[in-house]
Amino acid sequence: MAWQRLIRFVDESGIVGFGDACVNNGDDLLDSVRERTLYAIRLAGQDPFTLVATDDKVKVVRLLGVLDEQHVEVFKCIGLNYMKHIRETGRKAPAYPSMFMKPSSAVAAWDANVEVPTVAQGKQIDYEGELAVVIGKTGKNISREDALEHVAGFVCSNDVSARTWQRDPDFAGGVPQWSFAKSFDTFAPLGPMLVSPSVVGSGNKLHLQTFVNGEKRQDSSTEDLLFDVQSIISFLSQGSTLRKGTVIMTGTPGGVVLGLPEPKPWLQDGDIVEVRIEQLGSCVNRIVHEPARAVL
Amino acid sequence: MAWQRLIRFVDESGIVGFGDACVNNGDDLLDSVRERTLYAIRLAGQDPFTLVATDDKVKVVRLLGVLDEQHVEVFKCIGLNYMKHIRETGRKAPAYPSMFMKPSSAVAAWDANVEVPTVAQGKQIDYEGELAVVIGKTGKNISREDALEHVAGFVCSNDVSARTWQRDPDFAGGVPQWSFAKSFDTFAPLGPMLVSPSVVGSGNKLHLQTFVNGEKRQDSSTEDLLFDVQSIISFLSQGSTLRKGTVIMTGTPGGVVLGLPEPKPWLQDGDIVEVRIEQLGSCVNRIVHEPARAVL
Repeated sequence: MAWQRLIRFVDESGIVGFGDACVNNGDDLLDSVRERTLYAIRLAGQDPFTLVATDDKVKVVRLLGVLDEQHVEVFKCIGLNYMKHIRETGRKAPAYPSMFMKPSSAVAAWDANVEVPTVAQGKQIDYEGELAVVIGKTGKNISREDALEHVAGFVCSNDVSARTWQRDPDFAGGVPQWSFAKSFDTFAPLGPMLVSPSVVGSGNKLHLQTFVNGEKRQDSSTEDLLFDVQSIISFLSQGSTLRKGTVIMTGTPGGVVLGLPEPKPWLQDGDIVEVRIEQLGSCVNRIVHEPARAVL
Repeated sequence: MAWQRLIRFVDESGIVGFGDACVNNGDDLLDSVRERTLYAIRLAGQDPFTLVATDDKVKVVRLLGVLDEQHVEVFKCIGLNYMKHIRETGRKAPAYPSMFMKPSSAVAAWDANVEVPTVAQGKQIDYEGELAVVIGKTGKNISREDALEHVAGFVCSNDVSARTWQRDPDFAGGVPQWSFAKSFDTFAPLGPMLVSPSVVGSGNKLHLQTFVNGEKRQDSSTEDLLFDVQSIISFLSQGSTLRKGTVIMTGTPGGVVLGLPEPKPWLQDGDIVEVRIEQLGSCVNRIVHEPARAVL
């Protein structure tokens, strides 16, 4: 890839485009945004996976979501992957990764509202801070050794979930509704940038924290991943083509509301959730209930 | 839409394009293919959902898969939807549809081989004959009443499944692997044509049969759907944008191998599975084991 820290932004001329963020460390990105001192090297192209570097250094006026639904092929998500979270859900360590999917329409920008639709309001809304991996080169039957060649970059993400739809037998029906409960529009915030393996290697040693209204809820490291990034890519690609633009969410550590003691503090209208990953910046999203309307 | 029975084909000049099949009844389509007497009205355009009719009647030399992975957004599949199948899996009728997903890369043509990858060989390969609905107009929070306006057409499909990966706790791990077990390349054959609601209405009264090597295994009607086509579209679109190109598989009736007595006749290398739906033609696929290789 022609970049280290991919962002999408509006420049001083109002042009939307991709760029390589001019920061020495990804941890500083959002400070630069707040201080309005962020610059980027413009990258030529529309497809985030075939961008070409230019000599053009421009000021970032507004930082957009790095990938929108046109760039995302689909989300493949690992359900149980940190031992502490596996224990808090009362399960045993699986022999293979557990995978479910979200559609591209679930994507949201790093600073967007998570809009809880009528059908999910009061349905135990929960966060899951996760390291996400974006596939930049289509592949199949990828070996562990070759896995990182298929990675465009790493990004922090929140696998927002409506637990009632996911787990309550009166709603989930005969099979767990993993997909339905996690696929609502804006339930997959990503951002604020994609960081290349040339900067963070395999992504397997990154500090991950989640805060709700500033209160720390999750605090772990991707070192605790039961299945690491390369193993997940290799597993998911067995017999199944991983297309460019596929976003793999690698699972969440302990500390989600589901695992907290009663009364569980499910996310409420107005809550702000921040998923912060070392070198990848923060995904900061306000939970907003859509105006209620009759459904079904 | 500018067509009644959408096909994709190669004409006598070797040109690949879309057309409206010149048959009086969809049941006759494959006979016309075999007799080499199929003609089509050419449709101008590359996007199957914005095609424009022409006056050009051309001979079909080869009938292709009607949608390939470039046309499919994603598969949203209903897990349990015919009462007889619900009973054979030992479950109760759910209050809401159960949804899981497959990626677009799983699509296969109506006559393609289902290529069982190494990782799924010997893992209880099963068929699920299903009515599929293709969304032609993007929508969200769609009412039952408006649902058919979003349907481009109906198509027969086979939700091929590796039951060991789906259900065996040693493979499925902590959560059922519905997605992984059903997402291998070619595990979602579609075809041979999309039939418009102007021909088959809501698709809720169509005879559906599945044959393995000519032996009838499934024999039902979409009248037995617990959640009908309009209900499924309305449910899946609550809070979640159903994008154009989304293929909804509506669930399978009784008669899958999983529900048969022991010893269960799981699909073997060389078996031919035909899913036949009234007016929609047949999806006829040979099960072929990929050459074995070391995995994982």
